[in-house]
Amino acid sequence: MNGAESLVRTLIKSGIEVCFANPGTSELHFVSALDKVGGIKCILCLFEGVTTAAADGYARMTGKPAATMMHLGPGLANGLANLHNAKRARVPLLNIVGDHARDHLVHDAPLTSDVEAVARPFSAWVKTASSPDRISSDAAAAVSAALNPPGQVATLILPADIAWNEAQEPVGLVQTPSPGAVDDQRIAEIKAVLDRGEPTLFYVTGQAVTEVGLQALSRITQATGADMLTPINNARLERGAGRVPIERLFYPVDMAVERLSGYKHIVLVETREPAAFFGYPGKPSLLAPKDCEFHTLSTPGEQTIDALEELAKRLGAQNSAPVTSPFDPGNVPDGSITPDTFGAVLRAVVPENAIICDESLTSGRALFPSTHTASPHTWLQLTGGAIGIGLPLAVGAAVACPDRPVISLQADGSGMYTLQALWTQARENLNITTVILANRGYQILRGELKNIGIPEPGPIAAGMIDVDNPVIDWVSLAQGMGVEAVRTGDTRELFDLVQSSVKRPRPFLIEAQL
Amino acid sequence: MNGAESLVRTLIKSGIEVCFANPGTSELHFVSALDKVGGIKCILCLFEGVTTAAADGYARMTGKPAATMMHLGPGLANGLANLHNAKRARVPLLNIVGDHARDHLVHDAPLTSDVEAVARPFSAWVKTASSPDRISSDAAAAVSAALNPPGQVATLILPADIAWNEAQEPVGLVQTPSPGAVDDQRIAEIKAVLDRGEPTLFYVTGQAVTEVGLQALSRITQATGADMLTPINNARLERGAGRVPIERLFYPVDMAVERLSGYKHIVLVETREPAAFFGYPGKPSLLAPKDCEFHTLSTPGEQTIDALEELAKRLGAQNSAPVTSPFDPGNVPDGSITPDTFGAVLRAVVPENAIICDESLTSGRALFPSTHTASPHTWLQLTGGAIGIGLPLAVGAAVACPDRPVISLQADGSGMYTLQALWTQARENLNITTVILANRGYQILRGELKNIGIPEPGPIAAGMIDVDNPVIDWVSLAQGMGVEAVRTGDTRELFDLVQSSVKRPRPFLIEAQL
Repeated sequence: MNGAESLVRTLIKSGIEVCFANPGTSELHFVSALDKVGGIKCILCLFEGVTTAAADGYARMTGKPAATMMHLGPGLANGLANLHNAKRARVPLLNIVGDHARDHLVHDAPLTSDVEAVARPFSAWVKTASSPDRISSDAAAAVSAALNPPGQVATLILPADIAWNEAQEPVGLVQTPSPGAVDDQRIAEIKAVLDRGEPTLFYVTGQAVTEVGLQALSRITQATGADMLTPINNARLERGAGRVPIERLFYPVDMAVERLSGYKHIVLVETREPAAFFGYPGKPSLLAPKDCEFHTLSTPGEQTIDALEELAKRLGAQNSAPVTSPFDPGNVPDGSITPDTFGAVLRAVVPENAIICDESLTSGRALFPSTHTASPHTWLQLTGGAIGIGLPLAVGAAVACPDRPVISLQADGSGMYTLQALWTQARENLNITTVILANRGYQILRGELKNIGIPEPGPIAAGMIDVDNPVIDWVSLAQGMGVEAVRTGDTRELFDLVQSSVKRPRPFLIEAQL
Repeated sequence: MNGAESLVRTLIKSGIEVCFANPGTSELHFVSALDKVGGIKCILCLFEGVTTAAADGYARMTGKPAATMMHLGPGLANGLANLHNAKRARVPLLNIVGDHARDHLVHDAPLTSDVEAVARPFSAWVKTASSPDRISSDAAAAVSAALNPPGQVATLILPADIAWNEAQEPVGLVQTPSPGAVDDQRIAEIKAVLDRGEPTLFYVTGQAVTEVGLQALSRITQATGADMLTPINNARLERGAGRVPIERLFYPVDMAVERLSGYKHIVLVETREPAAFFGYPGKPSLLAPKDCEFHTLSTPGEQTIDALEELAKRLGAQNSAPVTSPFDPGNVPDGSITPDTFGAVLRAVVPENAIICDESLTSGRALFPSTHTASPHTWLQLTGGAIGIGLPLAVGAAVACPDRPVISLQADGSGMYTLQALWTQARENLNITTVILANRGYQILRGELKNIGIPEPGPIAAGMIDVDNPVIDWVSLAQGMGVEAVRTGDTRELFDLVQSSVKRPRPFLIEAQL
């Protein structure tokens, strides 16, 4: 067998089941080996920003790495922004990036670049395969690296000659590293803090916002009077009726500072000290009170749930009932779609077990509080602030969970970054209902101009914010990529459209005019 | 004034007139300074791959750098693939990339990344501004670096606090480096080679394929019987009636080897030894005969035209008439559109002084030979092989030359990478006629599968090549971004559509069904 086949056989042994691919010439032996070996589903994406975000969405829903396949340095470069988000989501993700045959590199052919240097800023692990006989162990090491708790981006660079030359039988063995236990000392310290009865906040993400993690947190906070909050951007949250509700810290600095005022202690669970998304002139970067003390319960990759449950036990609360949201879908309001009425529609329409991919940005801040009592659902978000994740994240989530409807809430400005994802949604018949929140502007920047002290933008600044000239017609764009689509400005119509779409095994796009 | 204003004033003093922008929060002081100062046209792009390719197109047509404006590491990452092409085109290009305020960086906010590391693989010069008072000299140094002959990519990273804090008057002074003279020894060596009368090829690009460069080459080759060829991918070529025609070396390795067989000498003018685009099993990377001798007349950034004219003079050919193409637009064939009939249509329809942006890839290989006798025109190509340059390259060319019609020949698969460029074409009312060569596949990969020894692709490989499920409807996509569009499969209709479109001061897209 050749190196490509050895690689594919190793990936299969390592549990890789899906590859989101945009191959070029250098990857064709790898593609051909996928055909020969079988067992890995290969999904074509028409842009690499789609491959990486889809792999991220897949990993968030399965806890397992998908592979991506990208073409040389420039192909990988196109996938980097969403690798940034994946890195921030702390998911396992394996990039396979082709490169020129090694003896071809010296000739500086047009597509030559330093692929390792391109990969490094957004990969925790980077290696260029060095021989067909070692490609199997390299691939197994790459998967092990991707699985390093809680998960990270690993990039394996595959020179074309290593793919096409003869290789021995695959020998790679994946080491699956285990999450580390939380030191008993830390649990004892936090127990002692809670015993002092001073105002205390749990600032949590990661395993703490899974269903079980939130249950443990609910027991702890009920027993102690402490509060809990999660950052604005989580990789995955379990929410809705029957789950423990948790609020997010606000994005605007002043509101966030106000919200955190008065706390004497903040317990960090897989988080760092709360910081603003951006720095602003005359505003603080750090949001907590100056005299607040920080205590770390667990860091990403540690056994957070065990630690929370142990803490609940030491507080005598291990058997108390967590406080969960009731089921109350509310009523669908009449009238035009606003961020607020959209929240009410979403609350009413979310089907049980739905996955919501949220890149709604400004329009979406109102959606979170209004959906605590919707049917139980999973909420995935833009983690790293690199816009253009929503549409392909939905692809990955739908591939991971074919039996769960996906609702993709997409701001219009950021949706334009990776709209090619719609084509893959159509090609794979994925049950994804996309709602474009069409405010026709980089609305977030309008607020930011005020934040930096420019309340009255001049014509250039105003021109950088409005994307209404020309108007983007999302119905045409979707149809151009094979996705059925309609436009509506009416709340009841929106409700009906989403309700019928989530039941159909194919994608549908609704341009919701705000 | 603040640092942003000092930066803008320095850019204007340095001759920067256009900025292709996709700003975020960190760049808003810079945007606001553009408003305050005036004098730089700021063009919004909805994806960073558009900003960088547009700046490349602008530089190819003006010889001057445009600025780009991009948002932090992930924004820059989205622009990298087309920076790779710009680097290979050897154009002057200045990136302004915002970053977090410096005291905000330590908090590792979601969008934090190592911006310098992201920039380095595709930038010749990278610097992070270190103080508001030095931003002016940093900006001038960046422009100087961009202008380093023949041109290169310079990236200036602008932390937000340097933009917003007080700065002194701008003091930056651009050093404009001059191209180096070609050593007389080299000219003499090549004169001696030519005097031997052995089979000799000039393998040329850069300044050699300008109108004047080609005239000098024509005089030299007529006087000596030497041949001339240009690589497959040139940044810019002057062609058509009245210009000296030059053929490109073939892309397929076997054809290229055959074409170069028999030469004893190859004179390199701003080129390297001819190498294959990719390496293939059992095929050579280097295309020239093994016993061929190479002689370098000039390297990029040297005074190639002076050297060619001096060589012609030493050959006594300085006053001979160059052999130029006659004007013969041919006839428009009837029937369906094929790569061959499309060539005939193009030959007939190209208006005088048109700029052709060619990312037609496989469909376009037949276009080049058939258009030598068309009206005189400029031909811009994909230089670095990173697909997704065509639509935004046309934006930059049209902004640079508002009085010249631009015809953008775009393969469908690669057009999907940066289709957001259509929106900017509409917003700016650019006279760009886009012809999508819709073969509904990554056709190039079909040939490449054969090249690597896989003539019968399996279902996965076949699925990676065809992009016809679903069919991409380019008419809908264009309309979705405000560009009028039609579809045709008929040569005469195509001719009529292009002919009327090039006269209108706005974009138009034709999906040509192959």
